[in-house]
Amino acid sequence: MTTLSEQVLALQPQMQRWRRDLHQFAESGWLEFRTATRVAETLHKLGYHLQLGREVINAEARMGLPDADVLKQQEARALQQGALPQWLHYFSGGFCGIVATLETGRPGPVMGFRVDMDALDLNESQAAEHLPQREGFGSCNPGMMHACGHDGHTTIGLGLASVLMAMKSQLSGTIRLIFQPAEEGVRGAKAMVEAGVVDDVDLFTAIHIGTGVPAGELVCGSDSFLATTKLDVRFTGVGAHAGGKPEEGRNALLAAAQATLGLHGLPQHSGGVARVNVGVLQAGTGRNVVADTALMKVETRGVSNQVNDDIYQQALRIIAGAAAMYGVEYEVKLMGAARSCTPTQPWVDFVHQQAEALGIFDSVVDRKAQAAGSEDATYMMERVKQRGGQATYAIFGCELAAGHHNAKFDFDESVMGKAVQTLATLALNQAQFGGGR
Amino acid sequence: MTTLSEQVLALQPQMQRWRRDLHQFAESGWLEFRTATRVAETLHKLGYHLQLGREVINAEARMGLPDADVLKQQEARALQQGALPQWLHYFSGGFCGIVATLETGRPGPVMGFRVDMDALDLNESQAAEHLPQREGFGSCNPGMMHACGHDGHTTIGLGLASVLMAMKSQLSGTIRLIFQPAEEGVRGAKAMVEAGVVDDVDLFTAIHIGTGVPAGELVCGSDSFLATTKLDVRFTGVGAHAGGKPEEGRNALLAAAQATLGLHGLPQHSGGVARVNVGVLQAGTGRNVVADTALMKVETRGVSNQVNDDIYQQALRIIAGAAAMYGVEYEVKLMGAARSCTPTQPWVDFVHQQAEALGIFDSVVDRKAQAAGSEDATYMMERVKQRGGQATYAIFGCELAAGHHNAKFDFDESVMGKAVQTLATLALNQAQFGGGR
Amino acid sequence: MTTLSEQVLALQPQMQRWRRDLHQFAESGWLEFRTATRVAETLHKLGYHLQLGREVINAEARMGLPDADVLKQQEARALQQGALPQWLHYFSGGFCGIVATLETGRPGPVMGFRVDMDALDLNESQAAEHLPQREGFGSCNPGMMHACGHDGHTTIGLGLASVLMAMKSQLSGTIRLIFQPAEEGVRGAKAMVEAGVVDDVDLFTAIHIGTGVPAGELVCGSDSFLATTKLDVRFTGVGAHAGGKPEEGRNALLAAAQATLGLHGLPQHSGGVARVNVGVLQAGTGRNVVADTALMKVETRGVSNQVNDDIYQQALRIIAGAAAMYGVEYEVKLMGAARSCTPTQPWVDFVHQQAEALGIFDSVVDRKAQAAGSEDATYMMERVKQRGGQATYAIFGCELAAGHHNAKFDFDESVMGKAVQTLATLALNQAQFGGGR
Amino acid sequence: MTTLSEQVLALQPQMQRWRRDLHQFAESGWLEFRTATRVAETLHKLGYHLQLGREVINAEARMGLPDADVLKQQEARALQQGALPQWLHYFSGGFCGIVATLETGRPGPVMGFRVDMDALDLNESQAAEHLPQREGFGSCNPGMMHACGHDGHTTIGLGLASVLMAMKSQLSGTIRLIFQPAEEGVRGAKAMVEAGVVDDVDLFTAIHIGTGVPAGELVCGSDSFLATTKLDVRFTGVGAHAGGKPEEGRNALLAAAQATLGLHGLPQHSGGVARVNVGVLQAGTGRNVVADTALMKVETRGVSNQVNDDIYQQALRIIAGAAAMYGVEYEVKLMGAARSCTPTQPWVDFVHQQAEALGIFDSVVDRKAQAAGSEDATYMMERVKQRGGQATYAIFGCELAAGHHNAKFDFDESVMGKAVQTLATLALNQAQFGGGR
Repeated sequence: MTTLSEQVLALQPQMQRWRRDLHQFAESGWLEFRTATRVAETLHKLGYHLQLGREVINAEARMGLPDADVLKQQEARALQQGALPQWLHYFSGGFCGIVATLETGRPGPVMGFRVDMDALDLNESQAAEHLPQREGFGSCNPGMMHACGHDGHTTIGLGLASVLMAMKSQLSGTIRLIFQPAEEGVRGAKAMVEAGVVDDVDLFTAIHIGTGVPAGELVCGSDSFLATTKLDVRFTGVGAHAGGKPEEGRNALLAAAQATLGLHGLPQHSGGVARVNVGVLQAGTGRNVVADTALMKVETRGVSNQVNDDIYQQALRIIAGAAAMYGVEYEVKLMGAARSCTPTQPWVDFVHQQAEALGIFDSVVDRKAQAAGSEDATYMMERVKQRGGQATYAIFGCELAAGHHNAKFDFDESVMGKAVQTLATLALNQAQFGGGR
Repeated sequence: MTTLSEQVLALQPQMQRWRRDLHQFAESGWLEFRTATRVAETLHKLGYHLQLGREVINAEARMGLPDADVLKQQEARALQQGALPQWLHYFSGGFCGIVATLETGRPGPVMGFRVDMDALDLNESQAAEHLPQREGFGSCNPGMMHACGHDGHTTIGLGLASVLMAMKSQLSGTIRLIFQPAEEGVRGAKAMVEAGVVDDVDLFTAIHIGTGVPAGELVCGSDSFLATTKLDVRFTGVGAHAGGKPEEGRNALLAAAQATLGLHGLPQHSGGVARVNVGVLQAGTGRNVVADTALMKVETRGVSNQVNDDIYQQALRIIAGAAAMYGVEYEVKLMGAARSCTPTQPWVDFVHQQAEALGIFDSVVDRKAQAAGSEDATYMMERVKQRGGQATYAIFGCELAAGHHNAKFDFDESVMGKAVQTLATLALNQAQFGGGR
Repeated sequence: MTTLSEQVLALQPQMQRWRRDLHQFAESGWLEFRTATRVAETLHKLGYHLQLGREVINAEARMGLPDADVLKQQEARALQQGALPQWLHYFSGGFCGIVATLETGRPGPVMGFRVDMDALDLNESQAAEHLPQREGFGSCNPGMMHACGHDGHTTIGLGLASVLMAMKSQLSGTIRLIFQPAEEGVRGAKAMVEAGVVDDVDLFTAIHIGTGVPAGELVCGSDSFLATTKLDVRFTGVGAHAGGKPEEGRNALLAAAQATLGLHGLPQHSGGVARVNVGVLQAGTGRNVVADTALMKVETRGVSNQVNDDIYQQALRIIAGAAAMYGVEYEVKLMGAARSCTPTQPWVDFVHQQAEALGIFDSVVDRKAQAAGSEDATYMMERVKQRGGQATYAIFGCELAAGHHNAKFDFDESVMGKAVQTLATLALNQAQFGGGR
Repeated sequence: MTTLSEQVLALQPQMQRWRRDLHQFAESGWLEFRTATRVAETLHKLGYHLQLGREVINAEARMGLPDADVLKQQEARALQQGALPQWLHYFSGGFCGIVATLETGRPGPVMGFRVDMDALDLNESQAAEHLPQREGFGSCNPGMMHACGHDGHTTIGLGLASVLMAMKSQLSGTIRLIFQPAEEGVRGAKAMVEAGVVDDVDLFTAIHIGTGVPAGELVCGSDSFLATTKLDVRFTGVGAHAGGKPEEGRNALLAAAQATLGLHGLPQHSGGVARVNVGVLQAGTGRNVVADTALMKVETRGVSNQVNDDIYQQALRIIAGAAAMYGVEYEVKLMGAARSCTPTQPWVDFVHQQAEALGIFDSVVDRKAQAAGSEDATYMMERVKQRGGQATYAIFGCELAAGHHNAKFDFDESVMGKAVQTLATLALNQAQFGGGR
């Protein structure tokens, strides 16, 4: 019988192929049509029970969905690039989520692992020294690039699926692998949670690679995520000739300017880190016209859900008041959201102990003081914890060619094997876990 | 029988005494207690029928009334300074208005003349070269000074009363002399109009001296007044320790800052001149406390009532919206108002012709392009015109020691005689007027 | 010998063809490549002496010029659409100006007539009831449409050229026809003035059709144009992750918001009408990034050059201060400008008298109280007046299918004949003019 | 030989008298004239070597000093209320600081203890249930009240002086007692540090009572103070009649409004807690006048000196830019400042161990998560640490009648004895301290 580490070693070439294929056909959030069909096909062939599309994605809970024509166009593009038609209809219309389940038939907890599949809205570097270009797997989709490592995450999910199925006889309980769309902009997890995909999960683990954690280090329970809300605000006023009849206008641009200054004045909170950013403001149609429209792309963040919610509620008040000042209409559209979430310590401890025992990491730590990002796996962690389960977020350090969200981002592919080995170990040894319910 | 010009000449010393007495005991708007009792006594002795206080002042329509304790305190001060108790009770509580009527018994129109009685909130210059000081009639009331010439206006009203009563036999119709409080801040006229004091006036004339019109010139129909609204805006929020619990505050100062910027962005109007000014802003109690209160003193102006009303309505929207942005309460208090108003041309023509015939002016003109002030006699003009009457606003040019509202303001007292002679002439010759109803 | 009116009548079909050809191949400001070659060819064939391109356009004084690649691309487009290569090289690079001169050989003044040639940045209506579509001459250039009548103006210029050449023997002095590019956005006139094209003009007339003047009416000396300055303001800050390192950013969007509120607070001026508009604001690149760039499209206006200059100088101060507040760089780019300008009364009187004598107008008036637009022919009028000449701006009323700058704009083509007849009459009868030098 | 605890017990009545006398004659910051003379007299009689006034207060480093006339007036008031003339001249002009030194003659470190003496600008409650009123020692100075417990601190200093002098034979090294003025508004400490009063201190302890720490608890090393800067900003523009000549004004109120919104947008910093507050804004003189003056009372705070300095530097930029926007002058006046400061752990440990051994506290802790206040003893701690010394800030919990800065504030006087006993113990046992140099 081959050991886990032998299996992972043998799987390495396949994982590299998977990853590079995903990288080459990078697909942005809610548009992972080709990706999802490929993932589904692989899991299906491995023998997993699949739940797909609308079954695992609550339609109403999707945030920041592209327009219908973009969805249609990109689905067509995916077909041309090798999306498998027999699976594509499940995902059509922006439902690119997959949950793969392995029932061992032996009593035991439900273990959930979550990976994400979407690329970023970014043009990949064409530079010769950029490895994906050199090796010929640079993104062929303009404006879409796997610059955050989700191609690696998806591959880790597939690798984990492979080794767990191969070692099925040594497992007990239930294995559930969750492949999530639209993590960028924290748009997709909520819709999967609302569809109930983690409702019966007892032991939940989400992962990321890189993020500044040094190569060789494992962070077992990252807790530095800020709660966040992303909103698009559209003010609609009345245009008028600015020279001739200025008083007939209702100025959406001025409403946006006042709202912007009001919003940036919000983040002082005794509860800890609070943030507001009006990152984009687009207003008006012509120099000599009272602007009848303004769009603001806004985000709030908070060290806790409470702080973020406080800031968000105040932001809504600011926006409504600014609209009232100028007699303009406004619409607030939720474009994304994530939660702050503390991992459960017993499960962090177990991950820590198992990882250390593996002997493949230079350093294993619980947490890391990090710059303030957000992550929507927190919605899943929160739901699991609310229902009494254990949950953590693990980060596998690795060498990066450039920082995340950079056009020259690339990662050392060897991290994928380490991640698969670690996560599989958790599944194989979960009976040793004493914590939880 | 003495001629009008002889009478006016004889009255000159008395008019100087009246004016200097009023100047010395200068009283600000709604506080003209001593002034009003003196005026009433004089008119009463002359034989006029008097309507006083609440009979000629609509209590609810008073704007910018001082606080009750100020009214009480100043009434007491007036008594000490020689207010006549037998008349004072009519004016108690801020009702210092007088209407004096002379019924000739002969058929004819009702002629209304309006003068104002209030001083400014200003400390009079103590300089030796300032004539009122040199001659010993500088204001004895700190913070109150006749720096706009209303002491002269009141004296003109008394002089006119004297000569008209003396020449009663040559008059027909009805003479009505209106002595108004609180013109500064355009606070008093509306309350007299709402009490009906000009409802039956057929031929109405209000006057001013100075205002930049050169000595020797008469402006027969000034039409340059801007409509205006004066408002006090108070925002009430919630205080909080700015370091410790900033999120518990509701910041009235920030609401006021946003409102201020919004208000100053209003005055672009195709209808013509429009103005907004936030002249005073007072907010907050301590450096380290989220400000729970803010007071703004605001005015809007417009070349027409329509423009002013447009700007005012937008201002209310700006204020309400700014309050909503910060979740603070707000209160808007009307502190004063005046109208734009065009004199009726037939009456202006008659004034022009009569004044020219007198031969006492170097120049007689219809109107003057002037800097943009406001005047609440416009409320009376508007009412008279609405009911079919004729109305104008005349300005008697004269030499000034310093500009209006200046601590060294003083005027050449000889203008008073000219004004009395002109106004009396209108009354004596009104039968020649062919215009109007 | 045919009379002027017979000539104009005979020219009507040709003018319709010219106008419809220009309309179909509408070209926006500085891009009038095809138009200019066609105009040059026609004038050349008529026998005019031509000055073209750089000779009549000062390169440095051009405002709001499109980018070099746009110029290149549109020049290529023009060639494909029938621009005449033999003339095109004169205009290459954004120099589409033409001055055509007819020396009569007889002593007399230099008469200047100015028309403009550019279309608007607008998509023409595709509606069946829109006459240019119905008749098959709708614009074939997307985003460019003759929606202001400059196709008519150019045609009037060509029609005038035709009849004047035909009646050359009856003329004296010099005739100068000026075909100007880029009037929209008031960008082109200044460059022609700086090239000296009106320096020796004694009697100057610019024209417009429509603008709300009723059909059958001629306005001989429109003076309602506001002085104006158009500016693009670009703030350049430093981006930063808004959640992670907000303090490392320098926020160009906030600078723009503050500047916007400051700018809109400027227009209160005792000199008369003043305007500011921030019509467009585009800032930021991503929701979670401190915005490092912001672009504002701004205009100031004033009833006089003085008022506009005052407002403009204050605007520059506001912009510089707002940049300083946030430590961001800024650049102000002049995109257009026009002057206020009063026509010279003697010339207005002459136009009035000649036009009335023609008997083809229902109504001939000097001026019209109009909504507040701007026009850069004022630069030419100002220069002519500065050098002692006479100048006016005439508006030929006509029926419009929809307002100017509307996608369904169209005008009754018969106005073109009336304009040609009137302008030619001025030339033919100029010897009767007694005013001027 | 009496023990320390017996001595403290015996001193209790005297301490109560001292405290109540100080409370009754409450004196605000820089005005502690009577207080300082009484303290000096007591220390002098005890036999301490005194340094007074200018010797221990650097004149230029004083912040937020009242105006010269206030200083003069209050010094006169103090004399009338029993200030001792023989000491008063040292403190005249705002130099109410005292340093008392006891040289034991035996080798050992310099131990510094710092207490503060100033009252708050607050009217003390007149309520019968307010103990100081009931017992007849309510403040007799209107607008000044010991509502923060500094009367207790000064008394602790005097009590400590008494027992240490009594037990002088058991001490070694040098004892230095520092009585500081003007801690409220964090104005006084810097001036004492700049005068060098802690330059040779090896073991430094500052104290506070109350602050929400429960009765019976001692916090040995409070580290929750925020660095802070207090600034007054004055904008000076040009007034103008808002209706007549608005363009002649330079609006200081608008500059302040823009600055306010800019300032409140600053506090987002990855370094941790950051705060800005514009707590007071006073602008303008009249409703119809363009405001020519505006005063803002501002504070910045930061979890570290670095963060506070960052915010402060940005605040200066915002202020300068806002002034530039409106062409107004501005002046920034430093009104107070304090530092963040971490106690040195060895000295905290020693305090902890000694206090616990006393057996008089229910609970002894190192630190406490507290609301974000500021304290200028941090300047002394910083200096001591920079020179290699040990420093801490201890808080003695006690029952309060109402919160600090409340008009009904009062504290359980028994805490004074506990504090004296603890601090004296540190002095008596300092030889046991192994840390430090």
